[in-house]
Amino acid sequence: MDHFRRHRGLLAVQSKIPIKDEYILSLVYTPGVADPCLAIHEDPEASFTYTMRGNTVAVVTDGSSVLSFGDAGPRAALPVMEGKCVLLKTLAGLDAFPLCAAERDPKRLARLIQCLTPTFGGFAIEDIASPRSFELLEALEGMSDADLPVPFFFNDMQGACSVVLAALRNALKVTGKEIKSLRAVITGAGGAGISVARFLRKAGVPDISLCDRHGIVWEGRQEGMNRFKQAAARELNPDGRKGTIADALKGADLFVGLSAARTVEPAAIRAMARKPIVFALANPTPEIQADEAKEAGAAVVLTGGVNYRHGMNVALAFPGILRGAIDCRATRIYDEMLIAAADAIAARVPEKEIGPERIVPRVFDLRVGPAVAEAVAGAAVALGVARADVDPE
Amino acid sequence: MDHFRRHRGLLAVQSKIPIKDEYILSLVYTPGVADPCLAIHEDPEASFTYTMRGNTVAVVTDGSSVLSFGDAGPRAALPVMEGKCVLLKTLAGLDAFPLCAAERDPKRLARLIQCLTPTFGGFAIEDIASPRSFELLEALEGMSDADLPVPFFFNDMQGACSVVLAALRNALKVTGKEIKSLRAVITGAGGAGISVARFLRKAGVPDISLCDRHGIVWEGRQEGMNRFKQAAARELNPDGRKGTIADALKGADLFVGLSAARTVEPAAIRAMARKPIVFALANPTPEIQADEAKEAGAAVVLTGGVNYRHGMNVALAFPGILRGAIDCRATRIYDEMLIAAADAIAARVPEKEIGPERIVPRVFDLRVGPAVAEAVAGAAVALGVARADVDPE
Repeated sequence: MDHFRRHRGLLAVQSKIPIKDEYILSLVYTPGVADPCLAIHEDPEASFTYTMRGNTVAVVTDGSSVLSFGDAGPRAALPVMEGKCVLLKTLAGLDAFPLCAAERDPKRLARLIQCLTPTFGGFAIEDIASPRSFELLEALEGMSDADLPVPFFFNDMQGACSVVLAALRNALKVTGKEIKSLRAVITGAGGAGISVARFLRKAGVPDISLCDRHGIVWEGRQEGMNRFKQAAARELNPDGRKGTIADALKGADLFVGLSAARTVEPAAIRAMARKPIVFALANPTPEIQADEAKEAGAAVVLTGGVNYRHGMNVALAFPGILRGAIDCRATRIYDEMLIAAADAIAARVPEKEIGPERIVPRVFDLRVGPAVAEAVAGAAVALGVARADVDPE
Repeated sequence: MDHFRRHRGLLAVQSKIPIKDEYILSLVYTPGVADPCLAIHEDPEASFTYTMRGNTVAVVTDGSSVLSFGDAGPRAALPVMEGKCVLLKTLAGLDAFPLCAAERDPKRLARLIQCLTPTFGGFAIEDIASPRSFELLEALEGMSDADLPVPFFFNDMQGACSVVLAALRNALKVTGKEIKSLRAVITGAGGAGISVARFLRKAGVPDISLCDRHGIVWEGRQEGMNRFKQAAARELNPDGRKGTIADALKGADLFVGLSAARTVEPAAIRAMARKPIVFALANPTPEIQADEAKEAGAAVVLTGGVNYRHGMNVALAFPGILRGAIDCRATRIYDEMLIAAADAIAARVPEKEIGPERIVPRVFDLRVGPAVAEAVAGAAVALGVARADVDPE
C-alpha cells in the first residue's frame, strides 16, 4: 500500500504544453486564450476541438457498489476510480478523471452529470448499486441530446455485455454450439445481470433464465423484486418459469454468473447440457472456482479478475468503447456498438489459439482498445449516429 | 490558436506510476487497490493520504464572468479554466482540474461542490458574476466542516485581496505613506471590489470609498444596488457619503480599479493627494493606461494582465494560497491567511529593487508560490485552524 501513500494516489494533471516562460503562458493563458474562448462562444461544438473536452471523460460513482466492499462510499471508492482512469489512459489514450459524488439521489446525480457536460466528452458510470443504477440510467436516457450532448457508459452493465458476448463468441467455437440454439442461465439480477440477459437475447440467444438468490425471476414473484426485475421477467420469461438456480441450470448450455462468491455447486454444473460453458464472473471470488467447474465437466471456464489464468475483465471493453464513441461524437452508446465491440474483442484472439483456456484476449493486449474503438466508431457510422468523421489513424 | 487545436486543449491526466504490465496493474488496481479502499473506509481522513485527493483541487466556474467576454458560458470558459489549472500546477504543484458547470443557481452549485468533496482537497471558484458569486459564497459559508471538509477559495475576491495588499505594502514604501492614514477609493462594487474594500479596512486602511458606475455606494441608494452592496455601504460608508468617482478621488491617496476599461480620466488622478498610488486592474484593459496615469502624477502605477511591464496578476496569490491551505488541511481560508500571503508576496521583491515600477514580483517568479504556501500554512497554524502538521520542506 506504500505506493499509494508515496504518490498520494495514482492520478496527476499535467499541461500538454510545458509552461517554460511568460511568453508561452501568454499564448496558452491571457491574452492568447481569448481566441478559443471566442471560437467556442460562437460555435459550442468547437469546444471538442480547442479544449481538453475532446479527449476527456469523467468516471462517475456514488461508491455504493465497489469491488467486494459493496457500499464503500464515495471517498473509499476513489482509489478504484483512479485505477479505472489509468486503464482508460493506458488502454485507450483518454484523459479520465474520477468524480466520486456524495449523492445518492439518482435524479440529482443525473443532473450533476448534465451540469458538467461542458467539461467532459463523455461519462463512464461505475459501481452504482442496483436498482439506483437503473434509475440513473432512466434519468440520463430521458434527457435530450441538447441537454446531454455527450455519451454515457454504464460500465457494470454495458461493459459486461460486450465482454460476455466476446467470450461467448469464442466459447461457441470451442464447443461447436450455435448461439441460436443456446439455453442460458444468468445469475445476479442487478444492473449487470439484467443488462447482459437483455443483450444476449438481442444478440440471438433464444432461451435465457435470469436468476437471483431467490431463484428464477418471474413476473409477479414477491421476494426481492423491484420494477426493473419485473420488467426483465416480463420480457425474458413470458411463460413465467419458476424454480431454483439449480433447476434452471439443468440441461443449460451457458452459465453466466454476475452475482456473488460461491453460489453455484459443482453438481449444478454436472447437470448442465453436454459441453457446458461456464462464465463465473463474480469479482474477486467467482460463483464457482474454475478448477471445480472443469472437474464438473465445464468445456470452457471463464472467471473474473485480472490476474487469474481464466481471467476476464471489463477493461477489455470500456476503454475502447468510450474512445470509439467519443471519437465519432456519438451522443449515445447503442447496443449495436456494444455488439461491434464484442466482435472486435473476440477477434483479437487468433483463430488457431482459441481453446478452452483461451477465449478472451489478455487485459494488457494493447491492441484491443484501438480495435474496439474502431469497431465501435464504425458501428456508430453504420447506425447514422456518428457526428464527426473518424480519422482511420 | 493552432496550439489549442493540435493538443486538444491544455490538460492531460496521467498516472503517476507507469502501468507497464499486469503485475503493476495488480498493485494499483485489483486486487492491490483493496488496501487503500479499506483504510479509507475505516478512516475517511486517510483519503488525503492514499488518493489524489490530497493534492487535487477543482477549478469551478459557471462561466458567467470570464475575462473580457463577461457571460461566456461554461463551455467557452473551459480554455481559461485549463489555463488556471496549469498555473496551479506550474506555480504550486497542485493537480487542478476544471469543472465548468452549466448551473446558474448558486445554491445548487454549492450542493454540486459539496457532492464532489470526496474527490477534491479544495475548490478554486472562478469567474462567477456578482451578486451570484456572493450567493454562492454565502451558501458555502453556511455549510459545516462536516458537510464541506475542504477549503474553497474565491479567486476573484480573495485572490484580489492578497495581491492588492501585497502591491500596497510596497507602494507605501515607495511613497512614504502609512496605511493607517490612507484615503482609498475602490471602483467596481462586484465581488472583487467589495471584498477588497472590506479586506483593506481589516488590514488597516481607515477611509475607503467604494464606488460603482453610479458613483459612491451609499446605503439607501436606489440605482444599481443589491443586498451585498447595501451591506458593504453600511459597513464602509456609515456617514452616507455621496458623489461621483471623480468626487471621491479628490484628495485620495490610493485608487484601486476593479471595474471596467477606461473609466477614470487623467484629471481625476491629478485631483488626488500628493504621490497618488494607482492600481488600475481591470483586465485586459485598465481603468486608465499606466502612461496616462503617470503623466497625471501617479507615483506608483499597477495595471492588470501578465505581459505588461506594470502587470499584476492574481496568479501571484492563488496557487500558493491553495497549496498552503491544503497542505495544512485548513477547512476554510481566513483573512489572516490572505494577509500572510500578501506579506509573503510583497517580501519577494528585494528591498533595494522596490520602486515606482516594481512593487510586485513577476508572475513567473517560481519562488512566490512556495513562499506564499508557507506563510499561509503558518498563519493557519497560528489561527489554530491547521489540521495537519506541515512539513517545512
